[in-house]
Amino acid sequence: MGAVREVIEKALAEGRTALTAPEGRQICEEYGIATPGEGLATSADEAVSIAERIGLPVVLKIVSPDILHKTDAGGVLVGLKSAEEVRAGYDTILANARAHNADAAIDGVQVQQLVGGGHEVIVGAVTDPTFGKVIAFGLGGVLVEVLKDVTFRLAPVSGEDALGMLDDIRAAEVLRGARGAEPANREALAELIERVGRLVSDVPEIVEVDLNPVFADANGAVAADVRILIGDRPAEVARLPREEILRQMTRIFKPRSVAVIGASAETGKIGNSVMRNLINGGYQGQIFPINPKADEIMGLAAYKSISDVPGDVDVAVFAIPAKFVAPALEEAGRKGVAGAIMIPSGFAETGNVEGQKEIVEIARRHGVRMLGPNIYGYYYTPENLCATFCTPYDVKGSVALTSQSGGIGMAILGFSRTTKMGVSAIVGVGNKADVDEDDLLTFFEQDDNTKAVAMHLEDLKDGRGFVEAARRVVRQKPVIVLKAGRTAMGARAAGSHTGALAGDDKVYDDILRQAGVVRAPGLNDMLEYARALPILPAPQGENVVIITGAGGSGVLLSDAIVDAGLTLMDIPPDLDAAFRAYIPPFGAAGNPIDITGGEPPSTYENTVRLGLADERIHALVLGYWHTIVTPPMVFAELIARVVAEERAKGNVKPVVASLAGDTEVEEASEYLFEHGVVAYPYTTEKPVAVLGAKYRWARAAGLLR
Amino acid sequence: MGAVREVIEKALAEGRTALTAPEGRQICEEYGIATPGEGLATSADEAVSIAERIGLPVVLKIVSPDILHKTDAGGVLVGLKSAEEVRAGYDTILANARAHNADAAIDGVQVQQLVGGGHEVIVGAVTDPTFGKVIAFGLGGVLVEVLKDVTFRLAPVSGEDALGMLDDIRAAEVLRGARGAEPANREALAELIERVGRLVSDVPEIVEVDLNPVFADANGAVAADVRILIGDRPAEVARLPREEILRQMTRIFKPRSVAVIGASAETGKIGNSVMRNLINGGYQGQIFPINPKADEIMGLAAYKSISDVPGDVDVAVFAIPAKFVAPALEEAGRKGVAGAIMIPSGFAETGNVEGQKEIVEIARRHGVRMLGPNIYGYYYTPENLCATFCTPYDVKGSVALTSQSGGIGMAILGFSRTTKMGVSAIVGVGNKADVDEDDLLTFFEQDDNTKAVAMHLEDLKDGRGFVEAARRVVRQKPVIVLKAGRTAMGARAAGSHTGALAGDDKVYDDILRQAGVVRAPGLNDMLEYARALPILPAPQGENVVIITGAGGSGVLLSDAIVDAGLTLMDIPPDLDAAFRAYIPPFGAAGNPIDITGGEPPSTYENTVRLGLADERIHALVLGYWHTIVTPPMVFAELIARVVAEERAKGNVKPVVASLAGDTEVEEASEYLFEHGVVAYPYTTEKPVAVLGAKYRWARAAGLLR
Repeated sequence: MGAVREVIEKALAEGRTALTAPEGRQICEEYGIATPGEGLATSADEAVSIAERIGLPVVLKIVSPDILHKTDAGGVLVGLKSAEEVRAGYDTILANARAHNADAAIDGVQVQQLVGGGHEVIVGAVTDPTFGKVIAFGLGGVLVEVLKDVTFRLAPVSGEDALGMLDDIRAAEVLRGARGAEPANREALAELIERVGRLVSDVPEIVEVDLNPVFADANGAVAADVRILIGDRPAEVARLPREEILRQMTRIFKPRSVAVIGASAETGKIGNSVMRNLINGGYQGQIFPINPKADEIMGLAAYKSISDVPGDVDVAVFAIPAKFVAPALEEAGRKGVAGAIMIPSGFAETGNVEGQKEIVEIARRHGVRMLGPNIYGYYYTPENLCATFCTPYDVKGSVALTSQSGGIGMAILGFSRTTKMGVSAIVGVGNKADVDEDDLLTFFEQDDNTKAVAMHLEDLKDGRGFVEAARRVVRQKPVIVLKAGRTAMGARAAGSHTGALAGDDKVYDDILRQAGVVRAPGLNDMLEYARALPILPAPQGENVVIITGAGGSGVLLSDAIVDAGLTLMDIPPDLDAAFRAYIPPFGAAGNPIDITGGEPPSTYENTVRLGLADERIHALVLGYWHTIVTPPMVFAELIARVVAEERAKGNVKPVVASLAGDTEVEEASEYLFEHGVVAYPYTTEKPVAVLGAKYRWARAAGLLR
Repeated sequence: MGAVREVIEKALAEGRTALTAPEGRQICEEYGIATPGEGLATSADEAVSIAERIGLPVVLKIVSPDILHKTDAGGVLVGLKSAEEVRAGYDTILANARAHNADAAIDGVQVQQLVGGGHEVIVGAVTDPTFGKVIAFGLGGVLVEVLKDVTFRLAPVSGEDALGMLDDIRAAEVLRGARGAEPANREALAELIERVGRLVSDVPEIVEVDLNPVFADANGAVAADVRILIGDRPAEVARLPREEILRQMTRIFKPRSVAVIGASAETGKIGNSVMRNLINGGYQGQIFPINPKADEIMGLAAYKSISDVPGDVDVAVFAIPAKFVAPALEEAGRKGVAGAIMIPSGFAETGNVEGQKEIVEIARRHGVRMLGPNIYGYYYTPENLCATFCTPYDVKGSVALTSQSGGIGMAILGFSRTTKMGVSAIVGVGNKADVDEDDLLTFFEQDDNTKAVAMHLEDLKDGRGFVEAARRVVRQKPVIVLKAGRTAMGARAAGSHTGALAGDDKVYDDILRQAGVVRAPGLNDMLEYARALPILPAPQGENVVIITGAGGSGVLLSDAIVDAGLTLMDIPPDLDAAFRAYIPPFGAAGNPIDITGGEPPSTYENTVRLGLADERIHALVLGYWHTIVTPPMVFAELIARVVAEERAKGNVKPVVASLAGDTEVEEASEYLFEHGVVAYPYTTEKPVAVLGAKYRWARAAGLLR
């Protein structure tokens, strides 16, 4: 480490942004990253001993300040395979050099290991604006440069993570020896990746590393070319201790009292909507309207200033124009509020960056956590708390949703209401001047009212903080993320291959996955996952079985299973026979199990019960076909009953359903949803996508090992 | 051609399934497909002249029945670059051979062109069970074999199609010279592909062709290895003339009279449901109930047999058990019906293949076109015709939907009803024993009541027939296809690389795209495309502009634009300035145009009107954010009005909208849909996906050139 630091500091002192090749090699050596061995020989004997030390074959090159074009001078010999060849080669080179220029001063002959066998891979590191040091790995050449087949992880990476990276590229098979190639030494390659991760984590001044190519064969991995860019040490991200976050967040979500700064009796004013929602929402704590011109608002005593309120105030909701915020926040801070819910817009989002800085500074000085500015407010249903200017929402449930955009927040509200989705919280984070997703995750992690978290986000202030929080939460509850701006590739000024590859979204995608987050591809998916995931029990294994009345749905459901990364169970003969006993002779067992269309309720009942009871099956996907023999509501009630009965016996498995039929299937789907079966009409994709999301979480939480 | 036929017939006569390498080369030569040049020299002079003819560098190889291991005998020289080297090489080889075995009989020295530069690609052909001869192209090595980066087309391919194939692989950039490589000669490579397509089309006995590798460089393309598999000439697919199809299909969809075989007065019977639906649906033609035991059914005179019906019968709907079908069909055939709507199940789908063959044979003998068996029937709303046992459907409109599965048919019906989708036809094709998608496309093509066609299918009886029909239809109307069984890779017995690559779905996907079909990824997508595409006007160019009240929606809509293969217009300065004049200073012009959240209806109106009026803009994507200032229905009515006004001025452009807000946005979306704006609540993906589908069709129809 001392040597590394010395190299870096010298280079920085010289105003350089890149290390020289020898400096790069030296740093690699310090970190046990193999580079082609080399040495300077001043005799044939020495050349042989260097060659034997670094390994044959080798390249010999004349070293002379007087010989510029080594090759023209006959000063380069490539691929010498034995001690004899090296010895003879040394002499040949010296003779050639003297013949070329008899007066040349000759320092000696450089003996360099010849590399280039095995697989050409690229290992690199970049400094990501969101996540800090990030490690990249890919296969060299066309695969990385044209197909962008590359994978990223937060640095440092564990050995296990590094091995995972080898499998996380599309061409992973190649390293395992596809097409008759020699497999790479996976452990050696993973170790090299791990060492690069350690290097950039130890030395923050290293901005980018590019080992390209690295040659990986059965014996090991050697970095043939090393490029290291350096720069200023990045600023440390300040983080509050978890206990401190939790203390204030708990006061914010479970306040004993709420003050409304700018409360109003006048309909149409935000301060009136907030008052109305707090009161009508059924909040049981104290509500203090603050308005310098009123004595009483909506039947509650009003105060000129928050300072006048008797006793403690946990939360202050701001419903005043931006220009009045700073002094009011100062007063709220002095009063000791835990949370400032900063509804007003007119800060950074309209270019008023200074105004936002000012209020952040005020809040920080007083230890006040500020939500927003530029938000609709927040809901926390367990406390009947509706501190927003939108309409109240009161369907209690177990998913907490957050959004960075007000529009998306409104979509969450509308979707929740129309689907009767049970929520614990809906929170707008807006400009995220202070409270961000990490803080909310820290609260929801330990909140027993919340069983799943769904977050819409456009950026992360502190990517590492988010990953750390998400990893903790994911062990217990799914975290669903809709990351907007997927396709807006960062206009990154790339100083290296790795830098050029680190487009924003690929980095986000890999790292969110590494954090165990379930990423939703779109808004509607996020909403559906949020609605369905808390309802579905966690699967205990990968065996998914389709039971369908419509053969056509069975085929589409199978397609969806593959798309969702799920596994259609290979049904063993005894189980196949057991299913066959219930279905017509021309039905198809196997998987999908096609019970055929004209069957009575008993056939659905028998097969679904068997699917729930047999412990080798871990999840069921049902395909219903509307018939006169088994009408939609008969199917729905039957499935709800069978699932409940089997759950009571301990057979707890996720069950999803696709209902094909006339409009009665809509009511049937709703009934099933209410009874713990995730069901949709007119789609085979959605129920399976939701099951796939549940599985992604279950795998990340380690439930399927 | 004569020579080719001779080679093939000789090989087939010898019972072979593969050609030898020289036979393969000979066939390539006949078709102008370059293989490495070669010749046998019996003197040094001849070796030089052959080398100069085929091009340097060359490989020399001793040809002697007595020298088995040529290399050991010093009988191979690689990479001879000049006439002198060839001349000397000839002598060296002969000398070496004599030194090795003085008694060896020497036929001469083979002079072979040395190939291997440039890009390694694979060109092949397979005989697909659905599509017949299909051409494949990909980049050699890892790209094809590990990443399956390969593209397919129906053979023969035009030169333009062949050029298109070069761009249709993920690594297309490589051939254009990515990473500093020499670009391939695209015309030469396309020509080689074209020639392979002609070869397999000319010679049906060629089952598979594998040119692997082909070396393509700036000069041309040479097939270094040729493998050709042969087999029996595939059976010709019988096709009816278009006029014949149309004549019968028109009688089926616009019948003057319908007989119901098995009509019944008893509720719950299929023959009763069909009667009820025909009558209640409002069908104005004659209805003839056929039932040996009744004189009158539902107020209509019943007949013992269809033979007893006075006058002509266009359509016979069968509502009797499978075992009674054959004789009744025979009678219907004698009566001269155009169509037999074969509702009964119990044929091939239950293993009764013979029974199905029998009725197909009867229908064919009488020139009767049979729909089914094993179907729900069909609807054709312009005639108020509801010949099904399901409930009637009467929302007239312009999309025709077909389904191979009854369950999916029911989902179509339910979805149509709940969304009030206007349809012209819903048709079940079931077992497709006779009438298939080609026949239906042939009718819908010229049916003025149908503006778009959506088809669910699991397989195609005649892939080429489908492609031909689809290509014709697509010129005028979108054809949407949901191909189920995407992920069930055919268990193809592969005799070649190309064969192994031709997994069913990739072949389907490429060829459906080639046919101009809009493929829907899932059931719900097919239904949404069917509902929306006829409503949206066709775009006239690629410039899409987003106008949004919610910045958050704007970001998600941009993501969706990229996912849907659409292009966010690069807004020129004058247009940018024009938009900026309407939006607050802190709003963002550019694209998305973010008008910000708190704006009144006039801001939406001004910006949307500008977007519709400026002729450089071709499509609008709107993001609405529910606010008190501009409530959902105000937005909806305003947009509907502006769109209608601009259309009246000739500014006809597709407009789609994503509505974020509380539940009122649902009504607003419906209102917009009814007024020609495709709008959805709680999703940013769906409206853009639908617009993307419309664009895919418009491009295929040649409207955007």
